[in-house]
Amino acid sequence: MAVADFTPTYKESLFLPSQLSSLSSRLSNTRSHVLKPFLRPRNAKICCSVAPNQVQTPLAPQPTGTKGECYGVFCLTYDLKAAEETKSWKGLINIAVSGAAGMISNHLLFKLASGEVFGPDQPIALKLLGSERSFEALEGVAMELEDSLYPLLREVSIGIDPYDVFQDVEWAILIGAKPRGPGMERADLLDINGQIFAEQGKALNAVASSNVKVMVVGNPCNTNALICMKNAPKIPAKNFHALTRLDENRAKCQLALKAGVFYDKVSNMTIWGNHSTTQVPDFLNARISGLPAKDVIKDTKWLEKDFTDIVQNRGGVLIKKWGRSSAASTAVSIVDAIRSLVTPTPEGDWFSSGVYTNGNPYGIAEDIVFSMPCRSDGDGDYELVKDVLIDDFLHERIKKSEAELLAEKRCVGHLTGEGNAFCDLPGDTMLPGEQ
Amino acid sequence: MAVADFTPTYKESLFLPSQLSSLSSRLSNTRSHVLKPFLRPRNAKICCSVAPNQVQTPLAPQPTGTKGECYGVFCLTYDLKAAEETKSWKGLINIAVSGAAGMISNHLLFKLASGEVFGPDQPIALKLLGSERSFEALEGVAMELEDSLYPLLREVSIGIDPYDVFQDVEWAILIGAKPRGPGMERADLLDINGQIFAEQGKALNAVASSNVKVMVVGNPCNTNALICMKNAPKIPAKNFHALTRLDENRAKCQLALKAGVFYDKVSNMTIWGNHSTTQVPDFLNARISGLPAKDVIKDTKWLEKDFTDIVQNRGGVLIKKWGRSSAASTAVSIVDAIRSLVTPTPEGDWFSSGVYTNGNPYGIAEDIVFSMPCRSDGDGDYELVKDVLIDDFLHERIKKSEAELLAEKRCVGHLTGEGNAFCDLPGDTMLPGEQ
Repeated sequence: MAVADFTPTYKESLFLPSQLSSLSSRLSNTRSHVLKPFLRPRNAKICCSVAPNQVQTPLAPQPTGTKGECYGVFCLTYDLKAAEETKSWKGLINIAVSGAAGMISNHLLFKLASGEVFGPDQPIALKLLGSERSFEALEGVAMELEDSLYPLLREVSIGIDPYDVFQDVEWAILIGAKPRGPGMERADLLDINGQIFAEQGKALNAVASSNVKVMVVGNPCNTNALICMKNAPKIPAKNFHALTRLDENRAKCQLALKAGVFYDKVSNMTIWGNHSTTQVPDFLNARISGLPAKDVIKDTKWLEKDFTDIVQNRGGVLIKKWGRSSAASTAVSIVDAIRSLVTPTPEGDWFSSGVYTNGNPYGIAEDIVFSMPCRSDGDGDYELVKDVLIDDFLHERIKKSEAELLAEKRCVGHLTGEGNAFCDLPGDTMLPGEQ
Repeated sequence: MAVADFTPTYKESLFLPSQLSSLSSRLSNTRSHVLKPFLRPRNAKICCSVAPNQVQTPLAPQPTGTKGECYGVFCLTYDLKAAEETKSWKGLINIAVSGAAGMISNHLLFKLASGEVFGPDQPIALKLLGSERSFEALEGVAMELEDSLYPLLREVSIGIDPYDVFQDVEWAILIGAKPRGPGMERADLLDINGQIFAEQGKALNAVASSNVKVMVVGNPCNTNALICMKNAPKIPAKNFHALTRLDENRAKCQLALKAGVFYDKVSNMTIWGNHSTTQVPDFLNARISGLPAKDVIKDTKWLEKDFTDIVQNRGGVLIKKWGRSSAASTAVSIVDAIRSLVTPTPEGDWFSSGVYTNGNPYGIAEDIVFSMPCRSDGDGDYELVKDVLIDDFLHERIKKSEAELLAEKRCVGHLTGEGNAFCDLPGDTMLPGEQ
């Protein structure tokens, strides 16, 4: 395996111990402790280290005693079994959404409430996690949910402490993350957002349903998911997902466009690896109208180069056109990702999700979160697809993304309980247009 | 009927003929001809008149020859009847949405595409109308629709000329309107937006399906709907709707909250009149768990005063909390309004819509667009509900909203082909928080 060039470099550390100590503080304090952006030449390597005594210990729940607050009409009590139109419904499930006052959530929450994700007989409780700064906006979101009169939406509560909000949740959709500011690169985000996901992992471990499914959307989502998972050892590692579904959807659309067919003809699309510019949209296994994509699209140069570039640059093009990032289609892809886990995968097809590598059949390094082809029986769980082709071209690209994820993992050792952290990431592999 | 105090005042005209001439120019030129806001003392009466030779003649289609452009993957041809999974679908319907690059549309378009409005076997074509200024944003919206891979969404086209975009549409959802700027009041909006809706009415008349259903959302929506209708004499007057569904939804939620029941227990909620501060949320006919609301909520002062204030102020409170207007719940209410016309109304219940008064059983003045209780067989049409109670208190409030709509109608006589326009509207009856 091609391991990225990696030198432990205490002397080149860009972090002072005092900064790291502040980085280790709780989520609720993150706002006042955010490091200023590190300005450095583009493509410079980022090297940092953490002394052993600064390593965070996973599993230190800090329940506060305050409760996520129910909101307005959602504070009422009722008996679903007593009313004719609701008595055949399933039991209520609790769904937490972080970054609930943001634009992606503003699309997602209404989709969850409408029943299009979990079905028309599945009542839900939405538990909205925001920040102190966004609390009033959270109330606004709750008001709009009230005014939408969705019959399946039976409870809404809002809060800023994950130990309150995550209480008994069966699903946690973790969208909230610090956006990338000017001059910030992937390593900076890993540090800043890693704190958030370590904290939320601990909270999930302490108070969520023991079989909670966790969908990480906030970037860098693969490594955030790994950090979250490592801080929640009571929750099965298989339950953690990093969202690569928007990449998959975009890849399907581009193959369709190139082949001159409607997008419903494209299947078996895999995004391999990291949700970054090293991601690998897989045209080798993709099928168009049931045929291998390569048999339909003969333009090998386009497949090997342009296709991946277009998929990766889609967000950047979109932000230029639309003036903001793609909140609506991101929310659609979250819906798709969850639906893929709660409905059986169509015969012969699969979907992509960033999941924990633990005995995978592709020879990918273990103990990272890597996007791979999955199938589900619709029970919330998944299995990896075994019969996929991997040729030299695909193998090489998968290895590159694997190397990046291993490097990211080394950057966050202090957050995963694995000891020192050493960063030597390439300058910037954030997807264009992504914040 | 209490007619608002009204004096024709040529001398007090705030419009110069040159301004009116520019106001009469086409939608695509509106941007460069918008009048500056008229600054005047609050609560002043607004008086204006239009000379007979400045009255617009309805029915002057100006087709340009340019076509709404299909976008990306939606330009492909396919045969729905040839594929197994689509051959049982209904025929494609064309849906136009104006203001398609705005926030309400950004929620609505994805709901239309998902099938939650027209059903899981109804393929749709979306025809997006924007402005020259918003054209790139329209492309961004189309890209996000591509990336969402909705199977039912078969065509998307974008354009800035309503004569192109409205070609053969069965539904037109007219959201786009000039927002209220600083110092602008209802009369200013009537003039500026009236031009847009006169133009769009002419375009619908010329090129849309002869039975097109038109849902007007852009404010002041009742009179905009009237203007649109008057400029489209080939389309049945009954097909025009002004959206008061968000008010209805908010009213239901507030009655539920006061009664201490979940919102699904509230039915028979009518919003009477204008979508403005003269609107009348009707607690006399509303029912809670099947009982008259007044039998459940004994607090008459609350019903007669606070209830209406809360419903009217909801948008204002929300904009303060959330920092922007309520796009998500507005989109939900548009979905509700359309679904109420394409699905049968539940036995004994009804919904509100601003519709044309032409032989109504409530004694409301004819020839305006007034929100009233409606039922539908689910065929896209509706009938007015006959068995409603109207007591003196309700009658008085209905008459006040009627007087306002008659005054608004007099303001836009030059746009409806009825001759001179004379405005003597009270200062401001825009709903708080609305733009």
